[in-house]
Amino acid sequence: MNRWKLRIPEGVQDYLPEECYNKRKIEERIRNIFFLSGYEEIETPSFEYFDVFNGSNINIEQEKLFKIVEAGSRILVMRPDLTMPIARIAATKLNELALPLRLSYISNVYRYEELQIDRQREIAQAGVELLGVAQPEADAEVISLAIKIFVELGLSDFQIDIGQVEFFKGLIEESKIEPETSEELRILIDQKNLLALRTFLENISMPDRLKSIFLGLPQLYGGVEILEEAMKLTQNPRCINAIENINQVYNILKAYGLEKYISFDLGMVQSLNYYTGIIFRGITSNIGFPLCGGGRYDSLLSEFGYDIPATGFAIGIKRLLISLEKQKKLKNIPTIDILVIIDGNYEKGYQTIQALRGKGKRVELFLPPDKDSDPLSYAKEKGILEIIRIDDVGIHQIK
Amino acid sequence: MNRWKLRIPEGVQDYLPEECYNKRKIEERIRNIFFLSGYEEIETPSFEYFDVFNGSNINIEQEKLFKIVEAGSRILVMRPDLTMPIARIAATKLNELALPLRLSYISNVYRYEELQIDRQREIAQAGVELLGVAQPEADAEVISLAIKIFVELGLSDFQIDIGQVEFFKGLIEESKIEPETSEELRILIDQKNLLALRTFLENISMPDRLKSIFLGLPQLYGGVEILEEAMKLTQNPRCINAIENINQVYNILKAYGLEKYISFDLGMVQSLNYYTGIIFRGITSNIGFPLCGGGRYDSLLSEFGYDIPATGFAIGIKRLLISLEKQKKLKNIPTIDILVIIDGNYEKGYQTIQALRGKGKRVELFLPPDKDSDPLSYAKEKGILEIIRIDDVGIHQIK
Repeated sequence: MNRWKLRIPEGVQDYLPEECYNKRKIEERIRNIFFLSGYEEIETPSFEYFDVFNGSNINIEQEKLFKIVEAGSRILVMRPDLTMPIARIAATKLNELALPLRLSYISNVYRYEELQIDRQREIAQAGVELLGVAQPEADAEVISLAIKIFVELGLSDFQIDIGQVEFFKGLIEESKIEPETSEELRILIDQKNLLALRTFLENISMPDRLKSIFLGLPQLYGGVEILEEAMKLTQNPRCINAIENINQVYNILKAYGLEKYISFDLGMVQSLNYYTGIIFRGITSNIGFPLCGGGRYDSLLSEFGYDIPATGFAIGIKRLLISLEKQKKLKNIPTIDILVIIDGNYEKGYQTIQALRGKGKRVELFLPPDKDSDPLSYAKEKGILEIIRIDDVGIHQIK
Repeated sequence: MNRWKLRIPEGVQDYLPEECYNKRKIEERIRNIFFLSGYEEIETPSFEYFDVFNGSNINIEQEKLFKIVEAGSRILVMRPDLTMPIARIAATKLNELALPLRLSYISNVYRYEELQIDRQREIAQAGVELLGVAQPEADAEVISLAIKIFVELGLSDFQIDIGQVEFFKGLIEESKIEPETSEELRILIDQKNLLALRTFLENISMPDRLKSIFLGLPQLYGGVEILEEAMKLTQNPRCINAIENINQVYNILKAYGLEKYISFDLGMVQSLNYYTGIIFRGITSNIGFPLCGGGRYDSLLSEFGYDIPATGFAIGIKRLLISLEKQKKLKNIPTIDILVIIDGNYEKGYQTIQALRGKGKRVELFLPPDKDSDPLSYAKEKGILEIIRIDDVGIHQIK
């Protein structure tokens, strides 16, 4: 036999019954939270024109896209993200609705990631986009939604790190370095690669005061005191506005009673041509990757001809499953309640089964693979505690 | 602006909030029926090795596959079907479990179909596979499940056409024609193309008695009397066994009280190297395509090294949505129950909102896009009937 028939590609996975059951339960609960919070769910195509994901405020590398190339067609890609399709839809099909628009999704995205541990190539995500409001209340709403989800799912030991890309952008502007240099700098800071960062800064030209701030950025994380520290570092108005913005969002979240979940990290500097303000991610101690990520992206919608501000986030469902499993918060699939043996009387048998299922019971019809199959040992193996047999005389309790 | 940023490829679609809401509701109800009936849901990767979908008992044309081709990798395809991935999983990961195995899925499949009306290229399906039982009771179970779903979703005016591929295969065997000829014959019968079928039969060599049966096949559909008619046509044991098998399945469904939904069609002759027994499809008068399709495929699992019989079906969710919409059975999204204006008191405001959502209310925080935004006109546009304002004094009913 062709051995490849029995394998799956790297980076994708089968969700077998137990895990799939928990995935669905998590998705249902997240869906319900989004719904009660006023978000409307949408679903977009799994593949779209590459054009949708290609633009000056978007930085999804071509190398990471799954491409479907056909002669005679524009390039199609499997969606690497839901935010751009939602921007497209908002701009073309929902642009006459009153703002704000609150949209949500639970869908897979596809990225050709290097196969380090836990790097998936088909990624199940749940997320929201809140479109049309530039105020910090909107950022606080989406952050509080992420927290709400983690709390309601019973996840303990998580926190939300908040950053603000304008702080870094202000410093870069002040330093007058070239875009390529600033991108190298960004990557070193984002990776918290202190040694390489020090060497890099020694070899470029900028005021020592700025070098010292950049060198300190990877360590500018922690409690609310970080914001005061950051304020002392610079008089740059862009940076100051950024910190004030974080403070506004934080004060709302604090009033909401959520401050215990919040920390700050000004060294979070990813996706800078995409994000325009607050950024955040959810982390937990038992998994080495963020559980969720999001932020403000006020320039994206204008790429689709609809110039409105926006904020949102996405949760990685597999990572959530892993974290919840490590915390022993996953459930077992409810076993079959009753195994029914129909002994000739199909009519009575079917009616009985339907009536039991109508009452919410999981009921399986005993279908022996061969004549020797024994319902008792089958029930034992599957953990079914009740067996009934239905024949022309009536219903008999077997177990 | 690049106009392609605002478009989606042919054959795929955006599910906007209203349709997405109904899609989710339908999926939830189908999922619950599968669950109560003892089926365990699984989820497979959106793309897999082409090898999984390539084999002698599988006839998915290469032309219809969405292919992801990378140098250095085997060919990947977006799954055109769920049955083969489930066969792969059953053979590799669930092959130590007691039989029967009852598995279900709600997932998309991808096929490059000609763009006739309603031909989708991303197809949302819900289906089951019942593995390990060759008895007619298993076929009756999956057919009754399909009926149960249609009835429970309130679909009126549908029926299940039942056929049996062995009837056709027996006649072909008897006629001793070449495989290529029989395939041409099969297509003409499947398309019910009577004129071309007559011409075709006139030009090939086989006994007139058989020609006359083949010519009559496209019209061999209708009520249970069709089975008697078919019995009179031939003494071929394969054909007779096929009719007896349909009769067994029908008698069970009749005892279940489902005979009113059943009709027969011996001219259904699709996917003959895949199906091995009963085949069926669900149709309704208000849409020109089957709502569901399925049947017995006893040779497939052996391709994956696990030689067990199997039967199952898949429902097309979009077609179900279209049919239910035409029958005015779809629902509106519940409107937002309460619009909440927080006027300074974030703490009290958040607590109130959380308490209301905890009671199952859909509650939206009023986030004005600009200072002139008026909650009353916003609520009017969105059909929100209740507005409350929360400030330091208390909670005020505005509307």
